Amino acid sequence: MADLLAAVDRYLTDHDGQFLEDLKAFLRIPSVSADSRHKADVERAAQFVLAQMRSAGLTAELVKTAGHPIVYGHWQDAAGAPTVLIYGHYDVQPPDPLDKWVTPPFEPTIRDGRLFARGATDDKGQVLTHLKSIEAWMNSTGRLPVNVKFVIEGEEEVGSKNLETFLTERKSTLAADVAVISDTSQFAPDIPAITYGLRGIVACEVTVRGPNQDKHSGVFGGAIANPVNALAKLLAGLHDGKGRIQVPGFYGDIPPLDPAERQRLAALPFDEAEFLRELGVGAVWGESGYTTLERRWARPTCDVNGITGGYQGEGSKTIIPAWASAKITCRLVPNQDPKKIAAGLEARLRELCPPGITLEFSGGHGCPAFAFNPTSRYIAAAKKAIAVAFGVEPVMIREGGSIPVVSSFQSQLGLDTLLLGWGQNTDNLHGPNEHFHLADFRRGTRASAHLWHELSVLG
Amino acid sequence: MADLLAAVDRYLTDHDGQFLEDLKAFLRIPSVSADSRHKADVERAAQFVLAQMRSAGLTAELVKTAGHPIVYGHWQDAAGAPTVLIYGHYDVQPPDPLDKWVTPPFEPTIRDGRLFARGATDDKGQVLTHLKSIEAWMNSTGRLPVNVKFVIEGEEEVGSKNLETFLTERKSTLAADVAVISDTSQFAPDIPAITYGLRGIVACEVTVRGPNQDKHSGVFGGAIANPVNALAKLLAGLHDGKGRIQVPGFYGDIPPLDPAERQRLAALPFDEAEFLRELGVGAVWGESGYTTLERRWARPTCDVNGITGGYQGEGSKTIIPAWASAKITCRLVPNQDPKKIAAGLEARLRELCPPGITLEFSGGHGCPAFAFNPTSRYIAAAKKAIAVAFGVEPVMIREGGSIPVVSSFQSQLGLDTLLLGWGQNTDNLHGPNEHFHLADFRRGTRASAHLWHELSVLG
Repeated sequence: MADLLAAVDRYLTDHDGQFLEDLKAFLRIPSVSADSRHKADVERAAQFVLAQMRSAGLTAELVKTAGHPIVYGHWQDAAGAPTVLIYGHYDVQPPDPLDKWVTPPFEPTIRDGRLFARGATDDKGQVLTHLKSIEAWMNSTGRLPVNVKFVIEGEEEVGSKNLETFLTERKSTLAADVAVISDTSQFAPDIPAITYGLRGIVACEVTVRGPNQDKHSGVFGGAIANPVNALAKLLAGLHDGKGRIQVPGFYGDIPPLDPAERQRLAALPFDEAEFLRELGVGAVWGESGYTTLERRWARPTCDVNGITGGYQGEGSKTIIPAWASAKITCRLVPNQDPKKIAAGLEARLRELCPPGITLEFSGGHGCPAFAFNPTSRYIAAAKKAIAVAFGVEPVMIREGGSIPVVSSFQSQLGLDTLLLGWGQNTDNLHGPNEHFHLADFRRGTRASAHLWHELSVLG
Repeated sequence: MADLLAAVDRYLTDHDGQFLEDLKAFLRIPSVSADSRHKADVERAAQFVLAQMRSAGLTAELVKTAGHPIVYGHWQDAAGAPTVLIYGHYDVQPPDPLDKWVTPPFEPTIRDGRLFARGATDDKGQVLTHLKSIEAWMNSTGRLPVNVKFVIEGEEEVGSKNLETFLTERKSTLAADVAVISDTSQFAPDIPAITYGLRGIVACEVTVRGPNQDKHSGVFGGAIANPVNALAKLLAGLHDGKGRIQVPGFYGDIPPLDPAERQRLAALPFDEAEFLRELGVGAVWGESGYTTLERRWARPTCDVNGITGGYQGEGSKTIIPAWASAKITCRLVPNQDPKKIAAGLEARLRELCPPGITLEFSGGHGCPAFAFNPTSRYIAAAKKAIAVAFGVEPVMIREGGSIPVVSSFQSQLGLDTLLLGWGQNTDNLHGPNEHFHLADFRRGTRASAHLWHELSVLG
């Protein structure tokens, strides 16, 4: 087995230049899924992935959807070995603002050991680490140590609208033991990470209505409730003075944080002063009794994302606005049910609504949080693979954001997902001058190659 | 004296048709002060007023300002009699939306005893009642029983920007005993009113800032204060559960309502159910312990006129907004100082502002409330004149709105103002199909003519 791994490692070293050329070719395709003028480019990117899969030795096909195609590839001849479902996406964010790019977004350019291009880290570069590790195994050993199924979609940047249907329709085809996604980041430069938890989310909108049209605040002020004042009262009533969320049933299902996990999070090299400096904020704020990292990753939130009502132009306009509305999202932690949280939120808002104001509430869609047991053997396997490739043990982290596909894998396929980010938080994903460190591309590919091995020898 | 009054009354009756033709001519001039394309029309309207003054026997001139001219006319040969300053405006609101007018806004048309045109009631028709009453006195008796000074401006609908300078520069010229303005309404059809109180106003704007740009609510939510949530907390903290305003010093200077006044207000035929039905609101709301009319006219308010922050488009965007802001106006009652109230408001908002949020506060401009002693002899004179012309005693009312010129007359010239509204609340001022009842035009003109007499025989 050591011989096989040595052969794979040698292949990776020998083909480093070719891998980079392939990545550049991939990055030259402006597969902007949000822009219908790029429809043919998105299709070309799918064809590129298809060709990569086939040349790596996978059986692969383009699956049509109502939107951009999904590329599906698999190899299942490792009898008795685990099956791994690898997910990624070949579409990219729009490159705007173009004038902020040092070199054009679709002309991949190397500077300071980094490859600059839209999609370099999100997610073309990271997808290619897995395809290249497969190619290395197949071309150097003639086989893979595990069974693999690749699902590489073209609509991640526009909400993965058609992925759910694909997962439902191919449920049995996609059966696997564990999923792998590289679409996150390391904790910090040279501190690789395994993300074992994500927060869920639920999105709602509330509109309050008062008089049938904007009314003169002199003639009517004091006589009837003002929708903006009322909405402020409603939203203010969602937190108490200690930052605790005041929604019935909000915390009831959440188990207390594991003391071991709290110790692990506290041990991470998180520089709060630097964090605040980058945000331009003078002080942290939030639920009392928890550290900032705990509040970001392991505690739920209730944030207003936008509010609107009445006159918003220059100067003043003396009206009682006819209505006001707010968009609210709650970030959820494991065991919180998005529908139940939305119902509690609506009940709380209605409870606070004053006479003369009518309330409309909509939304409630979202996804639950995700947590991978950090002591699982899949995590142990990933740790070993990463330690070999990066020369250092990965840290175990959670993320405050939500990755809906991870929820879908859990709910549709019953799969836990290994979130293995090879990039950096500072790679400017979604911004101008997105890049991927060549070292991370190499280390990621090697970690991926070793992961297949480690998963095949699970205890 | 009875002979003189009878002669004046006869003149009014004999010239009824001519007065109406003159009003129509005035209304045909589209003197929209807000629209620079109508600059020449606004000037024409000023010339029309000038000509009316001169033909009524006043000495009159056009006074240039940085904007539209002020027409000033006077007659001061009533030695020993009081001097009355009459204010009005010859400019009108824009006529939009044009498609809602049954007949064109600048083609005065009579239907159902009402004259339809932009400016019919606000304020050309009401201004003309006073000019025509002067004409009647001069042409039928050769003199006036009082001294008069007319200030008819052309910028009332755009904030009277240049009036203040005129009042300051002509302070001594404008010296008078009492002011008269007919730019309000009767309490209800056939219930004429004297408005003896107006609320003041102070306008402010508050902006709260958090992170230096919109931030991902997953990555950062829970770690730092959200400016929209924070603003909601600030605004909610401006009222307690009983609708009392929570601003330091807000109520300290306000004397309790006079029991006699409360009785008078309670006796007015105010139909609360009808009031709510017209607003489309299910219930009244406000400071406990006061009736709806008291809250509208005689108690202060703190209303948010507009709020904005974060994402306001379709669907959801999961951000912690970088900032949020709100426009706030307080309606003030006598003895409240706009500057002091603004300072208290700022202090209260700062007190409620959470860590990590910076607060900007601006504004503080406004005007104090106005109250005319309802037992004054000027009020008594106006009551008598109105009772003769309308056949019924006027009711004594206050208004919830603010008329800045009334404040200016008080602060600059030390004058109290008789607010004598000849129109109706339902005359659609500022809206399409504005009109003035011909009966009100006639009764208003006669009340004006009798007012000059009653003021000349004050006890």
